Amino acid sequence: MKNTKIDFVVSHINEQIKTRSLTTGSRLPSVRALAKTLNLSISTIVEAYERLAAKGMIESKTGSGFFVSAPLAPLSISEIHPKIIDRTIDPLWISRQSLEAQHNVLKPGCGWLPDDWMPHENIRKAIRTVSKTHANILTDYSTPLGLKSLRELISRRILNKGIEALPEQILLTDSGTQAIDLICRYFLKPNDVVLVDDPCYFNFHALLKVHQIQIIGIPYTQTGPDLDAFAEAIQTHNPRLYITNSGIHNPTGAVLTPTTAYQVLKLVENSNLIVIEDDIFADLELNPAPRLATLDGLSRVIQIGSFSKTLSGSVRTGYIASKSEWINDLTDIKIATSFGGNHLSAEILYIALTDGSYRKYLEELKIRLAKAMDFTIKNLEKLGIQPWLKPQAGIFLWCELDKHLDSSHIAQKCLEQGVILAPGNAFSQSQQYQNFIRFNVAQCQNPKIFEVLSHAIKHEIEQYPL
Amino acid sequence: MKNTKIDFVVSHINEQIKTRSLTTGSRLPSVRALAKTLNLSISTIVEAYERLAAKGMIESKTGSGFFVSAPLAPLSISEIHPKIIDRTIDPLWISRQSLEAQHNVLKPGCGWLPDDWMPHENIRKAIRTVSKTHANILTDYSTPLGLKSLRELISRRILNKGIEALPEQILLTDSGTQAIDLICRYFLKPNDVVLVDDPCYFNFHALLKVHQIQIIGIPYTQTGPDLDAFAEAIQTHNPRLYITNSGIHNPTGAVLTPTTAYQVLKLVENSNLIVIEDDIFADLELNPAPRLATLDGLSRVIQIGSFSKTLSGSVRTGYIASKSEWINDLTDIKIATSFGGNHLSAEILYIALTDGSYRKYLEELKIRLAKAMDFTIKNLEKLGIQPWLKPQAGIFLWCELDKHLDSSHIAQKCLEQGVILAPGNAFSQSQQYQNFIRFNVAQCQNPKIFEVLSHAIKHEIEQYPL
Repeated sequence: MKNTKIDFVVSHINEQIKTRSLTTGSRLPSVRALAKTLNLSISTIVEAYERLAAKGMIESKTGSGFFVSAPLAPLSISEIHPKIIDRTIDPLWISRQSLEAQHNVLKPGCGWLPDDWMPHENIRKAIRTVSKTHANILTDYSTPLGLKSLRELISRRILNKGIEALPEQILLTDSGTQAIDLICRYFLKPNDVVLVDDPCYFNFHALLKVHQIQIIGIPYTQTGPDLDAFAEAIQTHNPRLYITNSGIHNPTGAVLTPTTAYQVLKLVENSNLIVIEDDIFADLELNPAPRLATLDGLSRVIQIGSFSKTLSGSVRTGYIASKSEWINDLTDIKIATSFGGNHLSAEILYIALTDGSYRKYLEELKIRLAKAMDFTIKNLEKLGIQPWLKPQAGIFLWCELDKHLDSSHIAQKCLEQGVILAPGNAFSQSQQYQNFIRFNVAQCQNPKIFEVLSHAIKHEIEQYPL
Repeated sequence: MKNTKIDFVVSHINEQIKTRSLTTGSRLPSVRALAKTLNLSISTIVEAYERLAAKGMIESKTGSGFFVSAPLAPLSISEIHPKIIDRTIDPLWISRQSLEAQHNVLKPGCGWLPDDWMPHENIRKAIRTVSKTHANILTDYSTPLGLKSLRELISRRILNKGIEALPEQILLTDSGTQAIDLICRYFLKPNDVVLVDDPCYFNFHALLKVHQIQIIGIPYTQTGPDLDAFAEAIQTHNPRLYITNSGIHNPTGAVLTPTTAYQVLKLVENSNLIVIEDDIFADLELNPAPRLATLDGLSRVIQIGSFSKTLSGSVRTGYIASKSEWINDLTDIKIATSFGGNHLSAEILYIALTDGSYRKYLEELKIRLAKAMDFTIKNLEKLGIQPWLKPQAGIFLWCELDKHLDSSHIAQKCLEQGVILAPGNAFSQSQQYQNFIRFNVAQCQNPKIFEVLSHAIKHEIEQYPL
């Protein structure tokens, strides 16, 4: 009889663990409390708990009672975040979808090269080299500015674009994104106004949202920001920062012309604006375009960059190049908010960048990208999709669909079929790019993408006929 | 005759480079403009520029003109930041001094182990292993939460302290500091009130200053925060966060007792407080102390940690363990402000932590620290300096000097002699710890430290006699 009662308690607890009313590590009711609840004797509960413990389902911790120890199958991300797939398209939508994608998902919407396009052997060799390096690089904190040899290399690299910055004017960061974040923390207070290109890299919106500031989008033309809109925004809003890509613009693939760059700087000179120039696609250019920082001489322009697009998104290091006065304060903010930089990553990237194979890889990559660009353009043309501009280089193709089509509907539809797109309005403050999509040509090698896209467009037309 | 003119132009430009009127990378005047300025022929200028280019002083870039390429001696840090050594002692003083110290500087004030105490061979082996790993770990972005195997390991590690968090409740960050920063960004708005221990880890002050919030210090006793002051602060200020170390407290070396922990949580339950429990010294404990997160079950307590104190300050990865509801939003903030985590570092740390040698190293480290603790106490006693408390474990010794002595004067004096101290008020909101110093016992092995300290104290007594 007593056995039946004990069995009852055991299966009662088992059921609670199975249904996750009691989760791993959670405390079981005290023996006394459960006895009262179930109207059973204390000795019955004690015996039931002992049996569960013997089976390894629960464990006793001295003085703290019994805890569930049964190893549960880990919950999958989709159980924890059931809404990820249904998430409304916001500035973080593409990042989250792309970063969380399973291996069989196609990612024409993501912002980086396919894994098998990356220079693994170069990185592997650099890691092997670093495993034999000085002990302090393996375990000691980095200096506040970061690894000197990498800062010297960056100084030489940006000098090739005509930007003069001594190694002491360069601050290493954990990523290009962190570089922008530190600058925002330094210059912005809530409710300040920041100018971005419209369209621009969607994460600028996500980042600025964290800073609780007001964003003004400046229409981006095929030669750079619209100068009239830029002038008017300065006049009307007294903005504090302008964040832009020069070199190859994300998402449009356009290149800032020297004429526009000069006009932008003239407008900046008569304002309170500081310009953050994000030069993340520098190494993909065929013919280096002028940089705002080149013309300005790092007076009002701060340049940031990283190596995540052409070397590794895993071994992360970015940088800030700015006038000396600002570097010391930015370093204080870096230490306060992340303490040290990743010393080992900086060393690995330094070795990889100075290896002769990097230049060779880049040459081949540019050719490969040009071919992928042609392939993507041809396949999109078959679907009646035209590029807004045929980029000179880079990975992005900014495409305009029929103006009645809503690319966020199409993106949701494609996601159901395992294809992640980058719908236009994710890049836009004005939300005027509903019928645009950004394609990463390096991620567009699988014909399935165009099939799925074609079906999604047809579906959209059927759902919302003119 | 023409040669003289060319020589004149060459030395004119040389002089401008030497005096840095033209700095590395800056553009020379156009040939036409300089000819006009100097009233010389264009061919003279062209020839002068060609000669300078042949010497490697300047270089021609197609279509852009000539640029200065002469390598200048890089400015040293002291030229850029002449004030570092004179910097007023603020919450970042110790960090900056310690991180920027040359190799011959002694650092009893710094917060980490000497480089030669760190487990180099363990890290070296992990790096060698990782160089042979899957390509995607070398070059691809990490998933938003970070490397799953490391999250599973952290889940098991903290379960040993009675803290239940599924791997999906753990978010990897670039550092413990970044973990706290993300939580602050999530919960705080400017002018919110945050409680810290008084004294506490100085970087909490530096970090909170970036968030522009109000800091209230709660006196820290030998058993945890002063409960009356804690209760009153809740009543008076309606604080949003309480940031603390449990396990081994920085700087005091005290350990939160279960009784105090329970009382703290009772006060927290009747407030709007969220607690950030920084568990960075967990692996140095001899007998694990209770964690607030253990008692609370990650309801109001968020635990953060990292591996920088016992594995590597170079290969950086921290973590947040919290209830599921918060993890998704914290992940969004992480992506917006730093995009991905360092995938490679997470993999290296995972390999190093799961290597059998790590546990052996920890055992030896604890013995070594206990000996260093005794050595430091004995040497300080000779100078009449007493520890506020003899810690059970860890690296810190919080010491009280004669109450008339100002430890920031002493720290400045010692810095001139190449010894970096951690003066008490750098840890204190109330600035009541003027006569305290924190010693890192692992960094106190060199007798020179006690000599320099002794002289600095004598100097202070002479300068400011009673």
